[in-house]
Amino acid sequence: MPEKSAFSRRSFLHVSAAASAAAALHVMTEPILAAQALHPPIPKDAVIIDKNENPLGPCEVARQAIVEVIPQGGRYSFELTDELIKTFCEQEGLKPDYVRAFSGSSTPLHEGVMAFTSPQRSYVTGDPGYEAGTFAAKGAGARTVKVPLAKDYSHDVHAMLSAAPDGGLFYIASPNNPTGTLTSHSDIEYLVEHKPEGSVVMVDEAYIHFAPTAVSAIDLVKAGKDVIVLRTFSKLYGMAGLRCGFAIARPDIQQKIMDHTGWTFIPVTAAVAATASLKDPNIVAERRKVNTDVRQQTFAWLDANGYSYIPSESNCFLLDTRQPGKQVIQAMASQNVIIGRIWPSMPTYVRITVGTQPEMEKFQVAFQRVMKGTVTASVPGPKKAAWKKPADPHMEMFT
Amino acid sequence: MPEKSAFSRRSFLHVSAAASAAAALHVMTEPILAAQALHPPIPKDAVIIDKNENPLGPCEVARQAIVEVIPQGGRYSFELTDELIKTFCEQEGLKPDYVRAFSGSSTPLHEGVMAFTSPQRSYVTGDPGYEAGTFAAKGAGARTVKVPLAKDYSHDVHAMLSAAPDGGLFYIASPNNPTGTLTSHSDIEYLVEHKPEGSVVMVDEAYIHFAPTAVSAIDLVKAGKDVIVLRTFSKLYGMAGLRCGFAIARPDIQQKIMDHTGWTFIPVTAAVAATASLKDPNIVAERRKVNTDVRQQTFAWLDANGYSYIPSESNCFLLDTRQPGKQVIQAMASQNVIIGRIWPSMPTYVRITVGTQPEMEKFQVAFQRVMKGTVTASVPGPKKAAWKKPADPHMEMFT
Repeated sequence: MPEKSAFSRRSFLHVSAAASAAAALHVMTEPILAAQALHPPIPKDAVIIDKNENPLGPCEVARQAIVEVIPQGGRYSFELTDELIKTFCEQEGLKPDYVRAFSGSSTPLHEGVMAFTSPQRSYVTGDPGYEAGTFAAKGAGARTVKVPLAKDYSHDVHAMLSAAPDGGLFYIASPNNPTGTLTSHSDIEYLVEHKPEGSVVMVDEAYIHFAPTAVSAIDLVKAGKDVIVLRTFSKLYGMAGLRCGFAIARPDIQQKIMDHTGWTFIPVTAAVAATASLKDPNIVAERRKVNTDVRQQTFAWLDANGYSYIPSESNCFLLDTRQPGKQVIQAMASQNVIIGRIWPSMPTYVRITVGTQPEMEKFQVAFQRVMKGTVTASVPGPKKAAWKKPADPHMEMFT
Repeated sequence: MPEKSAFSRRSFLHVSAAASAAAALHVMTEPILAAQALHPPIPKDAVIIDKNENPLGPCEVARQAIVEVIPQGGRYSFELTDELIKTFCEQEGLKPDYVRAFSGSSTPLHEGVMAFTSPQRSYVTGDPGYEAGTFAAKGAGARTVKVPLAKDYSHDVHAMLSAAPDGGLFYIASPNNPTGTLTSHSDIEYLVEHKPEGSVVMVDEAYIHFAPTAVSAIDLVKAGKDVIVLRTFSKLYGMAGLRCGFAIARPDIQQKIMDHTGWTFIPVTAAVAATASLKDPNIVAERRKVNTDVRQQTFAWLDANGYSYIPSESNCFLLDTRQPGKQVIQAMASQNVIIGRIWPSMPTYVRITVGTQPEMEKFQVAFQRVMKGTVTASVPGPKKAAWKKPADPHMEMFT
């Protein structure tokens, strides 16, 4: 699916543009109508729990900081990125040249994989896992080695090492996406100590703020190890659309990534919002509690109703639908609840993002209906085709 | 300077952090003090005409659009990028899969050079010209071929072709940075028709909105040629800090760039501000007139006072200082006027950005003083070192 789908959203848009043009000319064709029927826009009042977004959005101080910076939008204002990095470094005890800011952590993820994999050095990742790096590996002409998670849904670092003596970059998301499960610091240390020479370990901590027991790998960076830690403001901080993330690594590793990205800085809107968020002493604890409370209430409901899921410490979890998950995705959409995708290795499971409490109550009602068979996937009337989730995996793949 | 300076801003920051730490411990060392003295912060009331920014900032509809999108900042909202691309394509008569949006045009510039140059395929550019691509060429292990501009300061496309039979990417900025001069559409066509097989021509149109006589190369993209056109919202649209730009090229060329960038989308703040700016029917003509009026008034003053400059159709121009330009940069800074850099091939010229009329009047007063010798570059008192422009070329290198 990767290369073919890369332009699928554009192709879809193209169809839309063609449809508009055709409508203007009063010419509609069957393929255009079919394409429109299969990709209806998501209704405004839908429950959107498919992309691991934070329904709370940016915190108040972040919103205010953006309003204040708008008049300055014509200036590059690199000093605002410097201020953000300085703030983070002071909090984490890092030297400023160990941290670089990007418009989200997707860029350093992609370019880090580009920098450390090649036709000779493979990309090694867990399964099920976050797929973004596999696209970068493809760009680098590298083999992707997918290693099944251990029974506790942590990364099986021993198996990862055995599977890829040619590994160039070992990718560990902790908490993992989609399972929301942790890989222990000691397992990550073991991987770092036993990985092939010249390789790096990338620890994606996009979801770490949701998990109180998670231990960051930043200490390994400080200790001079071959480790890249990724952080993002897209998740707990509610800034997915504003685009801000960090790569944390030794300067020589940063330089290798920079050879691929060029020198970068971030939008002033993202810089001031992220800085304000970091300086808010309460936001992490408050939002972690909100997410945990809603997630655990949802788990309690699932338990009470006899549904199985993988216990998660994050803002998403895998839910067993006991049938092809794609059917359930479609049936839930007919109930105005847009849920996340499946992973090929676990095809009966769908990924659910933790929304607000009212959203999760709507989810529960819809899920109960779908699982009881009150609602089925396809009930196309003569003029209504079944909803079909847009195919592009990138739709759900940004950090 | 490239590789050494890549982290120089970080190194400077590092010094600042060290200085803060040292100050907290009441320990100050000579190197820290010296570093601080050499890099004083730019005063708040300084005239900043060094980075080709637009002093007007974002237009009113753009500012309003940002305010309105803030509550949505927690969502990826890809549809806002789609809406921006659709708006641009409708205006330019392009198909949506010919346009990709980035956080500024620096990313497709860098990644385009990475994609089409290599140790076997050189990067070919004008001199003096915008230097960003040379950094990317270095990342790709490619040779950079700098070809002097023609006598009229257009790109000498015949000389570029002769100099680089191995050319992989030919870079033309029109209007050029720093000269503000145009390269004719027929010269660009000639280059496209006679370039080596497998190469591409990148036409950087960052400044095109300022030049009423400039002819875009977008028609060559529409005609299926091997051309990448870059556009940015950083200049006329006053959105340098908000980060939005386009690469316009055939889908197969976009795919090659995408192999290097991964799939990207832009901040929601940039998307809505850019869309609103494009839909404003007056902004280009209004802002072009403001810039032209101030620039021509400045030229009239320079003429009246016997100073030489290169006539420009853009928001910047090269000004002859009849002495090493670096001295003048420093002397102007002592007058609170921060002007742009020099190019090694024209060391007596400095680049001046067109600011507001009041800013250019302050520039004139300061420049007159400096050129009359009333002010000299270095007047360090016992405790005051001369101002030194921070070394990182990237400081002025974003589009």
